[in-house]
Amino acid sequence: MSSLHIDLNADLGETTAGNPVADDHAMLGMVSSANVATGFHAGDPQSIARTLGDAAEAGVVVGAHPAYNDPAAFGRRFIDYSPEQLADEVTYQIGALDALARAKGTKVQYVKPHGALYNAIVHHKEQAQAVIDGIKAYGDLPVMLLPGGVAVDLAEKSGLTVVREAFADRNYNPDGTLVSRTLPNAVLHDEKDVVNRVIEVAETGSITAVDGTKLAVDAQSVCTHGDSPGSVQLLRNVIDELHRRDIDIRSFL
Amino acid sequence: MSSLHIDLNADLGETTAGNPVADDHAMLGMVSSANVATGFHAGDPQSIARTLGDAAEAGVVVGAHPAYNDPAAFGRRFIDYSPEQLADEVTYQIGALDALARAKGTKVQYVKPHGALYNAIVHHKEQAQAVIDGIKAYGDLPVMLLPGGVAVDLAEKSGLTVVREAFADRNYNPDGTLVSRTLPNAVLHDEKDVVNRVIEVAETGSITAVDGTKLAVDAQSVCTHGDSPGSVQLLRNVIDELHRRDIDIRSFL
Amino acid sequence: MSSLHIDLNADLGETTAGNPVADDHAMLGMVSSANVATGFHAGDPQSIARTLGDAAEAGVVVGAHPAYNDPAAFGRRFIDYSPEQLADEVTYQIGALDALARAKGTKVQYVKPHGALYNAIVHHKEQAQAVIDGIKAYGDLPVMLLPGGVAVDLAEKSGLTVVREAFADRNYNPDGTLVSRTLPNAVLHDEKDVVNRVIEVAETGSITAVDGTKLAVDAQSVCTHGDSPGSVQLLRNVIDELHRRDIDIRSFL
Amino acid sequence: MSSLHIDLNADLGETTAGNPVADDHAMLGMVSSANVATGFHAGDPQSIARTLGDAAEAGVVVGAHPAYNDPAAFGRRFIDYSPEQLADEVTYQIGALDALARAKGTKVQYVKPHGALYNAIVHHKEQAQAVIDGIKAYGDLPVMLLPGGVAVDLAEKSGLTVVREAFADRNYNPDGTLVSRTLPNAVLHDEKDVVNRVIEVAETGSITAVDGTKLAVDAQSVCTHGDSPGSVQLLRNVIDELHRRDIDIRSFL
Repeated sequence: MSSLHIDLNADLGETTAGNPVADDHAMLGMVSSANVATGFHAGDPQSIARTLGDAAEAGVVVGAHPAYNDPAAFGRRFIDYSPEQLADEVTYQIGALDALARAKGTKVQYVKPHGALYNAIVHHKEQAQAVIDGIKAYGDLPVMLLPGGVAVDLAEKSGLTVVREAFADRNYNPDGTLVSRTLPNAVLHDEKDVVNRVIEVAETGSITAVDGTKLAVDAQSVCTHGDSPGSVQLLRNVIDELHRRDIDIRSFL
Repeated sequence: MSSLHIDLNADLGETTAGNPVADDHAMLGMVSSANVATGFHAGDPQSIARTLGDAAEAGVVVGAHPAYNDPAAFGRRFIDYSPEQLADEVTYQIGALDALARAKGTKVQYVKPHGALYNAIVHHKEQAQAVIDGIKAYGDLPVMLLPGGVAVDLAEKSGLTVVREAFADRNYNPDGTLVSRTLPNAVLHDEKDVVNRVIEVAETGSITAVDGTKLAVDAQSVCTHGDSPGSVQLLRNVIDELHRRDIDIRSFL
Repeated sequence: MSSLHIDLNADLGETTAGNPVADDHAMLGMVSSANVATGFHAGDPQSIARTLGDAAEAGVVVGAHPAYNDPAAFGRRFIDYSPEQLADEVTYQIGALDALARAKGTKVQYVKPHGALYNAIVHHKEQAQAVIDGIKAYGDLPVMLLPGGVAVDLAEKSGLTVVREAFADRNYNPDGTLVSRTLPNAVLHDEKDVVNRVIEVAETGSITAVDGTKLAVDAQSVCTHGDSPGSVQLLRNVIDELHRRDIDIRSFL
Repeated sequence: MSSLHIDLNADLGETTAGNPVADDHAMLGMVSSANVATGFHAGDPQSIARTLGDAAEAGVVVGAHPAYNDPAAFGRRFIDYSPEQLADEVTYQIGALDALARAKGTKVQYVKPHGALYNAIVHHKEQAQAVIDGIKAYGDLPVMLLPGGVAVDLAEKSGLTVVREAFADRNYNPDGTLVSRTLPNAVLHDEKDVVNRVIEVAETGSITAVDGTKLAVDAQSVCTHGDSPGSVQLLRNVIDELHRRDIDIRSFL
């Protein structure tokens, strides 16, 4: 009997105007959780609905992936929203996505903020609380976050379940932050390193930082990528290895 | 006991970037049904949420007012959507609005298409069916339409309740179409004419065309406007007159 | 012979989807410089072109009013642009506006950044330099700025002519910053105070702060507003008073 | 001495939010004319500027590629613009692009409408005239069009130079229209067929329709595609073959 399991999540539904960002179909055959775009940083209702239908068919759990309303920069720039603006936009996005999801026989079961918003609420209290308020205005959905940030504390105080995630292909500093992308060792390129990261999270919930420090972050999900042919193939190989080791890919729910 | 009553509806929630189109607050004190923008032709989640909160407080029934995704032209230009695109966008819009509405203690209880979309589905079968499909993907909400168009037939065939509406301030041709805005007698400017229109609809569901033809359109709601100080005052006067005649303003539900 | 004169500027061309923000026509009969929107925070090419045509007819000097690409919030939120993104967007906006202006018989003769961008470059060096780079990529147009900020220094170092402006209806702190809008005395409501501000600038280029400090800011233009019937009437009265005192309204050029 | 030459054009600058549609760099090493997006159907000022810089370096002639303002559908849906709206948007787009082009050491030397707009003005007189008016408001730039449409006639009547183009990889009906994409033989997949099409245009300006009819369309440019790795490789092979036959790739200017 397999006792080890891990949730793999990926950002999907980001096809805009017919131009895909990731290979959603391939990814839905591999991950257990799909963070589906809502049209604010990418995606349009039609392409989102297709991804939701594929997710329903593949039995992949759907999460809402709300973002700043900034398609021009793929939601990757900080925007100084007022808390009220941000909360209402989060509610709007979850409601829109859930409507499409239910039309396709599934539903939104968690929320993971996207891009610059995800990064901002690690430290920006007002925006973090606004995201939480926007979620709670829709319902008490679990929220997927970077461990250690202010949003984690505020979400738990607000009574939301927090799903902490680790990154499959990023190196960590001893303080739990990600090694900056400006540094040469920011990203794990070696399949073996990625496999080891996933296994470590599955076995212990911990992450080993670049200096060997063991970060007990209690991660329940691992973020993967499907935005290049190489990343899809890497994930395929990682999953083959997980299967060989009897580690199941399974939603955190 | 008053037996006569009529539903008055108006387009609200169209404030974008802080610039209001109508006096939502004043209108919510007068109408019984609010067609609330979804952000596709106008409105943003924050301003929409405020109007929804005001509607909840005023006890005004909320309808979704989905539109072509064309804020640059306020949803007033025909766009050649594919049916699949259009259906998914309608579902998305209703879901987004309903999420904000429920957060404010109310909910979406009907759907009225906006602008060029409203006009297109009077004759455009594919788009009419797409709007209906988009509504049904969310739920079997009543749909408010111009009497006599192809959308009415398709909606009823699809099992949706159709709410036929009359325009308070527009003249009608003998065939039931509106007198073109290019003609001098398109719009009723006289308060007395508007009062008579509303009373006729309340009493008979019919509309008298410019040549005296009685159009038995079975209208259950009358569309009013609040997009100018003059139109708000006109409506106030009309409602005073309705009250004097013991005609109640009441939702069609 | 009149020796005293002052430039009055106002933000115009902000009509979007047929919904005007200011009374452009009235304002063009009063001001000497029009900061015309480029479509990024407000305005669309057609409404912008109309305002440009009216400006040409009224002999009002046209400036470009570039903004963050954020129509949802009227350009009023800080966005963390990369310098390259921002510079290219500024060049794009000036070019687009100048094309419409020349089609209407006028041309862009200066640049005044809008809203949150205007405020950001008072202290944000990278964005300030990016705005300057974006302008210089189009041509060495004068740039209208808040006196005292980092953008002023960088613009002058880059060889651009800086036009310092004062606000007709805002109180100033002794350090030259504006009294925050959160404070009760942020805005001058009294016509006499506004007149005195304009006269002081016309006569000395200085501004008297709330505590009586004389701020020698060398202002060459005064920013006025036309976004409410009250503000238009106030400006009319102010201008009548200026005329009585033989102070000309004249471009800074 | 080589006497045969042909212009090859391609749609470039369509990278949005960091997600490329075509391999602009590879294409700029092969084509002689680049139809560069303006941000209305795709592209953003920064990515457009990069493509313009690359075009300048590669010595490729730049054309503006104006579109309906419909990024959600990549400009591929008909929109019922008013002629005034459309003309002003065309002028705006050319001006914006030319500003970026000049900043990069090149300039806009022709105009080719994009997508649904390109197709609409084959038969839609008002929109065709609006496009022409929008171009002329900027300057008398040559306009690249499908031979045989109403836009060709109106452009020539308006004094604009018309550049007729052929499609490298599409089959033609005997009446000069393209074989519908709904039919199996719409697209030429065989490298030899594409080579023959280009050679025929280079030698005669004519196109042979599916039934053998010789269409004397006087084409001066051939439209190519770089939106898939396959299409880039196909074009490379075609160009090798053209070189072997001593046919130069050269702008129509």
